[in-house]
Amino acid sequence: MDRTTPAPVPSTAAAHPGPGPGEHAALDLDQDAALLTAQLVDFPSESGTEKPLADAVEQALRALGHLTVHRYGNNVIARTELGRAERVVLAGHIDTVPIADNVPSRLDADGVLWGCGTCDMKSGVAVQLRIARTVPEPNRDLTFVFYDNEEVAAELNGLRHVAEAHPEWLEADFAVLLEPSDQQVEGGCQGTLRVLLRTHGERAHSARSWLGSNAIHAAAPILARLAAYQPRHPVIDGLEYREGLNAVRIEGGVAGNVIPDVCTVTVNFRYAPDRSEEEALAHVREVFADCGVDEFVVDDHSGAAMPGLSHPAARAFIEAVGGTPRPKFGWTDVSRFSALGVPAVNYGPGNPQLAHKRDERVHTGQILGAEERLRHWLTS
Amino acid sequence: MDRTTPAPVPSTAAAHPGPGPGEHAALDLDQDAALLTAQLVDFPSESGTEKPLADAVEQALRALGHLTVHRYGNNVIARTELGRAERVVLAGHIDTVPIADNVPSRLDADGVLWGCGTCDMKSGVAVQLRIARTVPEPNRDLTFVFYDNEEVAAELNGLRHVAEAHPEWLEADFAVLLEPSDQQVEGGCQGTLRVLLRTHGERAHSARSWLGSNAIHAAAPILARLAAYQPRHPVIDGLEYREGLNAVRIEGGVAGNVIPDVCTVTVNFRYAPDRSEEEALAHVREVFADCGVDEFVVDDHSGAAMPGLSHPAARAFIEAVGGTPRPKFGWTDVSRFSALGVPAVNYGPGNPQLAHKRDERVHTGQILGAEERLRHWLTS
Repeated sequence: MDRTTPAPVPSTAAAHPGPGPGEHAALDLDQDAALLTAQLVDFPSESGTEKPLADAVEQALRALGHLTVHRYGNNVIARTELGRAERVVLAGHIDTVPIADNVPSRLDADGVLWGCGTCDMKSGVAVQLRIARTVPEPNRDLTFVFYDNEEVAAELNGLRHVAEAHPEWLEADFAVLLEPSDQQVEGGCQGTLRVLLRTHGERAHSARSWLGSNAIHAAAPILARLAAYQPRHPVIDGLEYREGLNAVRIEGGVAGNVIPDVCTVTVNFRYAPDRSEEEALAHVREVFADCGVDEFVVDDHSGAAMPGLSHPAARAFIEAVGGTPRPKFGWTDVSRFSALGVPAVNYGPGNPQLAHKRDERVHTGQILGAEERLRHWLTS
Repeated sequence: MDRTTPAPVPSTAAAHPGPGPGEHAALDLDQDAALLTAQLVDFPSESGTEKPLADAVEQALRALGHLTVHRYGNNVIARTELGRAERVVLAGHIDTVPIADNVPSRLDADGVLWGCGTCDMKSGVAVQLRIARTVPEPNRDLTFVFYDNEEVAAELNGLRHVAEAHPEWLEADFAVLLEPSDQQVEGGCQGTLRVLLRTHGERAHSARSWLGSNAIHAAAPILARLAAYQPRHPVIDGLEYREGLNAVRIEGGVAGNVIPDVCTVTVNFRYAPDRSEEEALAHVREVFADCGVDEFVVDDHSGAAMPGLSHPAARAFIEAVGGTPRPKFGWTDVSRFSALGVPAVNYGPGNPQLAHKRDERVHTGQILGAEERLRHWLTS
């Protein structure tokens, strides 16, 4: 909302008084998802400071009455228990990157809402909350997941903590992560494996190089293999993924007159979800098997996620939201659902290219559109 | 000398009083080269602080009477003017690396003199001074060069400054640099050329690598060429040189998830003295001509020096000092003489491996041996 907009009207939740200085109004789930997005943006929740917002979300959900609500840290899980044949998850993170002088929100004349978190992803959270509020009897049982610390180190990630401590809360047939995807279904995600390939040599003065052995020269077959590598473009559930094997760093050298004894090539393998983590690792080992690698160190590894688009709930979802599903190339939290055996996709309002930018924004039409389509999927 | 040794006996130069606190005795050129080395070592002259020693050298040489003495900064040049058919240079630097708690000097029971500069190269300077003192009528005209700042950056080098300001002082048929060489003749020196070879690409997220172009992969042909390179071993004036072309550094990379847009390979070419600087540069350009190099930057270049062993003065020198001449692989100041058209060799007492070490030392037998052989060359 514009800076001249008065503070949001206090919630109708009778038990909750209006906001005092530095406090926030209770979340009003009766306003549409666009207005609710503005309220959420004006409720700062940078990573690590999500507690007040988690409290507000928990309180708003408990007030609805038709949901079983769990709390774990600053993560809130709310479930319908209707005994439906299928259960689907709607998940979103409630934290944002640091505010860059772009809060409170501002709605312009074109219906675009500006501010930190408008796109990534308080608009998605608003859609979740509106579905919780307006669809008390969905055609599939619903699990709403609101989690913290998505924008920071993986070990802090709230979805990870919930998955480790209470995997049963996340059991489902299908999951939708409401990350910004321009209202397109992005299926699964590719895995990412980072490996250090190290060659060894022997130092010597470069004036007498024959007394040493050059570790940088020894890396030549590694670079040649990378340059010649032909990545796969496998089609999975109708989506064409694109793998890639790339050097993302190379370093070697001691001084301008010394034959270097170590060279390290850091390789990043982005792989399609038809490979398991073990298979991806085995593939990289095989690619460089005869390249004279002296040390092979796994630096980082996050598995891929299957799109799961062949599941009935997913098919119905795609039909309801429209558009042509596309593969997700970057790694996202959908992979955590995949690791739990839950196929997952990204689908949410907002252009992902605008996430984390000072001029972050979302068109309110996309917020209302996503709300409407999800409701259609869950009620028709 | 041992720390318990009394201060050196004042010089016999009558005009010069004994040393006061913090002063030094005048140099006594009547003692043998081993004792004179000890006196020089006990006269600290780290790079940048050579003035007192340059003063003492100048004073001692002027006192001899048979030399024309020039002074330029802290560089001292002294010449016989006997009208001989040949003129040879005896050159040495008077500075040392920083003292490492190894001064004053100490003579052990095996005749080894310990201390900073014993090897590199006050023993050589002592030999120069003894020749100046004891050979007033050499069979070849002599030019003694004592220069400063050899152990620091090239732009401070005293020999360079003299060569630029007074090249006529250095004119000669042959030059001997009395750097430590274990009393072996080391002929000429190889050149050294350092070039940055840079490849360019285009950044992209590594999850969508096909949108970018990997600069590290583009460096593959450069490393392959380096790994396959066959260096020459040319024989020049009977000495076998050994060239070398090596990567001494490689760097590229932006972040663990970014396709890098620049990769830089730093290559060091050590080349034999039958190549000029221009030819060496042209060779490196040719080697990498078809390797996809986007930028070719000359980072550093110091030319080679011909050994000049076929010159009559050099042949007589080798016969007088004995041993089998060997090539000098590392770059040394002999190259400065070569650039002036003066063939030059290294020949001096001391093991070059001990230079700059805390346990730097020289066997006094080598000092006296070098003194004796040079005298033989210049008087027989």
